[in-house]
Amino acid sequence: MSAPLFRLTDEQPTAELFAARQQGLRTWLEKRRLPILMVSNPINIFYLTGFHGTAGIALFERLEAVIWVDPRYTLQAQGQARGVEARTGLFKAVGRWLKKRRARLAGYEDSHLSCAQFRILKRESPRTMRWQGAGGIIEELRMVKDSYEIDQIRRAGHLTSEVLTGIIPAIRPGVRESDLATELEYRMRRKGADGAAFETIVASGVRGALPHARASGKQLAAGELVILDLGAILAGYAADMTRTLYLGKPGLRVRNLYKAVVDAQQEAVGAARLGARAGDVDGAARRCLQRRGLADHFTHSTGHGVGLEVHERPRLGRKEKTRLRAGFVVTAEPGIYLEGWGGVRVEDTVLVSAQGPEILTPAAKAPWYIE
Amino acid sequence: MSAPLFRLTDEQPTAELFAARQQGLRTWLEKRRLPILMVSNPINIFYLTGFHGTAGIALFERLEAVIWVDPRYTLQAQGQARGVEARTGLFKAVGRWLKKRRARLAGYEDSHLSCAQFRILKRESPRTMRWQGAGGIIEELRMVKDSYEIDQIRRAGHLTSEVLTGIIPAIRPGVRESDLATELEYRMRRKGADGAAFETIVASGVRGALPHARASGKQLAAGELVILDLGAILAGYAADMTRTLYLGKPGLRVRNLYKAVVDAQQEAVGAARLGARAGDVDGAARRCLQRRGLADHFTHSTGHGVGLEVHERPRLGRKEKTRLRAGFVVTAEPGIYLEGWGGVRVEDTVLVSAQGPEILTPAAKAPWYIE
Repeated sequence: MSAPLFRLTDEQPTAELFAARQQGLRTWLEKRRLPILMVSNPINIFYLTGFHGTAGIALFERLEAVIWVDPRYTLQAQGQARGVEARTGLFKAVGRWLKKRRARLAGYEDSHLSCAQFRILKRESPRTMRWQGAGGIIEELRMVKDSYEIDQIRRAGHLTSEVLTGIIPAIRPGVRESDLATELEYRMRRKGADGAAFETIVASGVRGALPHARASGKQLAAGELVILDLGAILAGYAADMTRTLYLGKPGLRVRNLYKAVVDAQQEAVGAARLGARAGDVDGAARRCLQRRGLADHFTHSTGHGVGLEVHERPRLGRKEKTRLRAGFVVTAEPGIYLEGWGGVRVEDTVLVSAQGPEILTPAAKAPWYIE
Repeated sequence: MSAPLFRLTDEQPTAELFAARQQGLRTWLEKRRLPILMVSNPINIFYLTGFHGTAGIALFERLEAVIWVDPRYTLQAQGQARGVEARTGLFKAVGRWLKKRRARLAGYEDSHLSCAQFRILKRESPRTMRWQGAGGIIEELRMVKDSYEIDQIRRAGHLTSEVLTGIIPAIRPGVRESDLATELEYRMRRKGADGAAFETIVASGVRGALPHARASGKQLAAGELVILDLGAILAGYAADMTRTLYLGKPGLRVRNLYKAVVDAQQEAVGAARLGARAGDVDGAARRCLQRRGLADHFTHSTGHGVGLEVHERPRLGRKEKTRLRAGFVVTAEPGIYLEGWGGVRVEDTVLVSAQGPEILTPAAKAPWYIE
């Protein structure tokens, strides 16, 4: 049976918000001279219409919008989808609709349609019509979050922060990484999250040197740094945060490394202002670590957009030119990784706004060691 | 960052098992006269090689096999992948390899390659070569589980059964469906599961009449049937089981409905024998409910294969002709759904073997009411 996209709370955006999102799409289509766009990425369908299933195809044109779903989901789609007419069927029905309108050109999400699906689509649609790859349009629109989306991410971020703060008394030598991860995910759910936005990372000691480390069966030990990277999902929206803790009384080296990362992270947050380029935020963190001779150990980019996906546009990488606008939500997450020794990463989800950057994951960054 | 496919325990199949799986694929390719198959479905890559990441492309030909991965995963692939050479790169590297061999024909998994990816692939590969849609080959091989796979599914099934049995004392009026679901998933993780194979369903009272119901904020009430549908995932392998409980002392109608479903389920399990057709298993359950005048309320098929995916081939539907072979693992899950009233579903994961069907999710089906 087709899985739901994610758990969903009762709260829903208003019809006006969906109308605004669909208007945003139509403006784009006009600019690109595309009369029709077929949307097949379930996350984009949810964003534009509120329909919350994994099997559906939506078509948007200047005046009309239709969503086709599997017969088992027709009622659900009719109840959930806003600003579009919900109908039963898939590519056959899409093809009939296109034939009736004598469609000659349509865009489609080429990164979210398989070759097998495309073959069926072409078979069913007017023989002379042209399909133009038009991926990324809605992902571009999704970079600017509206007020409802910001509220959800803020809720998810605060919830994540509370769970992280609450787990600190349980962090001590002998505890297994995987048990901490299980406990963190459980507590997020208990606090009302729909789930974890991604597999919670708990990486202690030398394992912290692997930026992609996951929670393992390893037990925490005294004298180790512990990286906790987690995020709740709420009403479909993700948060993403990381804190690093030290078990014991840190020596000068650990203190300096921690302070360097916290400073770099603060620089990145401060740089996340209207009009700045994505690459500027990365540069701010990188320069700060460079001044301390640590830039070589910062082996990934500074951040990424967060929203309906935990990793979405823009990427805050070295040469990224996208200019930050009000309503962007991005992470700022510099880290340093010393092979065979350990790592430090500190990450917040940050809202870009006219009032300056707002940290949506406000858990404290100090005290950071557990004596 | 590219997500891992799923959590993974330390246990791993032996190199011999991977060799046998790859031999199975090569036999198929010979039969289909395909010199090369490109595998892009991460689950199929894991099945054939043990590489456990979401971004990789594998090519299998008669004598050679290569897997290309993102540079960040080269070391991981070299450590994990069996029977294939791990290299860095993606479609560009695939294209170079094909050009060097002057490849003229290759199959590809058309349901697991996006149009955007296929465009790049075609651009990079020899201009005169032909790509043939060859989806479903590995899914077909995966229907027959080897001894390692059966062990994992059995472990996942027994773990799921223990968790379900253990939760019964917590099932009482006033408890919220979503809290039960959270608790079930937490306990599966605590018992060593890598996670839940799918979103746990807890559907009580009238909500039980919706076969796709999920856990909601609704509280359980006395005099209600409660459907619990859950499954652990372990080493990548899923289990799937459902039990229905009644809160209170059931009257005659509820007793009869429950008995009808348990009988139909037992008939289905009994029919899951070597050489039977998938449709025969469905027919056994359906006839049993028909004799009681309940067939109209059994609105889905009787089951599906279970393995690396919780829903995989074969489908145990009305007209399915696939013959069951030793090593098939399928669910038997008849249910009846009475709109506005409630539902009953009972489901086990079942191994088809020469010794007869083995229930891999052995939690008791009685006592089933909680007074």
